[in-house]
Amino acid sequence: MKRLKCIVAYDGSLFAGYQVQPEKRTVQSEIEKVLTQMHKRKITIYASGRTDAQVHAEGQVIHFDTDLNIPLNKWKKALNSMLPDDIVIKYVSEVDSEFHARFNVKAKEYRYYIDRQENRNPFTRYYAYHYPYKLDYMKMKEASHYLIGTHDFTSFCSAKTEVEDKVRTIYNIDLVEEGNQLVLTFKGNGFLYNMVRILVGTLLDVGQGKIDPVDIKAVLESKSRPLAGKTAPAEGLYLWQVFYDN
Amino acid sequence: MKRLKCIVAYDGSLFAGYQVQPEKRTVQSEIEKVLTQMHKRKITIYASGRTDAQVHAEGQVIHFDTDLNIPLNKWKKALNSMLPDDIVIKYVSEVDSEFHARFNVKAKEYRYYIDRQENRNPFTRYYAYHYPYKLDYMKMKEASHYLIGTHDFTSFCSAKTEVEDKVRTIYNIDLVEEGNQLVLTFKGNGFLYNMVRILVGTLLDVGQGKIDPVDIKAVLESKSRPLAGKTAPAEGLYLWQVFYDN
Repeated sequence: MKRLKCIVAYDGSLFAGYQVQPEKRTVQSEIEKVLTQMHKRKITIYASGRTDAQVHAEGQVIHFDTDLNIPLNKWKKALNSMLPDDIVIKYVSEVDSEFHARFNVKAKEYRYYIDRQENRNPFTRYYAYHYPYKLDYMKMKEASHYLIGTHDFTSFCSAKTEVEDKVRTIYNIDLVEEGNQLVLTFKGNGFLYNMVRILVGTLLDVGQGKIDPVDIKAVLESKSRPLAGKTAPAEGLYLWQVFYDN
Repeated sequence: MKRLKCIVAYDGSLFAGYQVQPEKRTVQSEIEKVLTQMHKRKITIYASGRTDAQVHAEGQVIHFDTDLNIPLNKWKKALNSMLPDDIVIKYVSEVDSEFHARFNVKAKEYRYYIDRQENRNPFTRYYAYHYPYKLDYMKMKEASHYLIGTHDFTSFCSAKTEVEDKVRTIYNIDLVEEGNQLVLTFKGNGFLYNMVRILVGTLLDVGQGKIDPVDIKAVLESKSRPLAGKTAPAEGLYLWQVFYDN
């Protein structure tokens, strides 16, 4: 028996999210269906974490155990030939049996794409948030400095968040212009439910002058979700990379 | 009564093409539906030409006549607020009553996007042709020199082409690498049915070494469709720009 780790990209547009749900098309169920067919018995995969409906991934990580006699360099092609067009396996490696795609995560990077053009862009309607309104990028950068570091992010997660401990560390927040798009990058040791989308919604409010950058400190301290900005829509969000030791 | 000219972009993925067809979702029928609703009577639009199912446009041009009392600078917003997400009006201008979007075309530019990455890319599956195989770009450029100019393009159009005169002039063919994509640009005074896609299929055969660049001359002279390459798939093709006098 060996354990394989895969880096997976998917277009979230036509999925009800990553995790298996009865009667719904999900990323996990599509991958498990292919593996189950190959193994002729039920195979369960484990991911670094869930992603919501319409959220994309460039670098989701999963692992599973297999006793099939397929050489390592044939796995990617075998899986991709059976998977639907909106999921692709980018990389397959063998890891030791202690590795766990979720429990061993050291850090995650998410990116959020914002289309800044005046006109709606029909080609990015599922892949970026169309936000043509004025934004003060300097104020957004200033606000992000108050978010970086170790904080209780209760104000920045959905009321539906189930975990008790809401303290997380954000290592870095970047704002980069790529053509007509503004790309916000968030790297941290972990993110709560809807946290990146609420961070984005809040930074957009700051950029619009609705929240003063320095008030972010008070929003964090309040531990009150309503003081932060709206939850930005799912289509702009990408799970970009998952980091493990070595 | 005034005549309006619009530059229109659309994502062709979910359309059965530009032109109205009974029971099918087409670009023309979606735009006419909106205009008919606004005018409370049937409005017909005229385009620079058709595009096939799944073919995209960055710069399709249409015109129509209106007696509505809407200021010119309000038209774009009015139309875009009623059109579906996969069609956007990029520009509206008033033209004189002699202007015709189809009959006055001086030149057209098409672009064809080819995804050169080894892995399928789930995000470009509807927007580029995945072709990870070896290509000799120098040979493709050499072949394109034989295609540029005024020729009878019978070998490079679908057998279904209805027009008699198959002589067209190609002004320019460009090959440009943009990141992981190869972009082929074709500018000419007009293109026959499936012509760009057959030119692309033929250039790919040249790049693969299946056709010698110098043999393109013989393919043109033969006036025989089977001697040219396959018709490249629709999803990589964009009607990029339509040129008129002034």
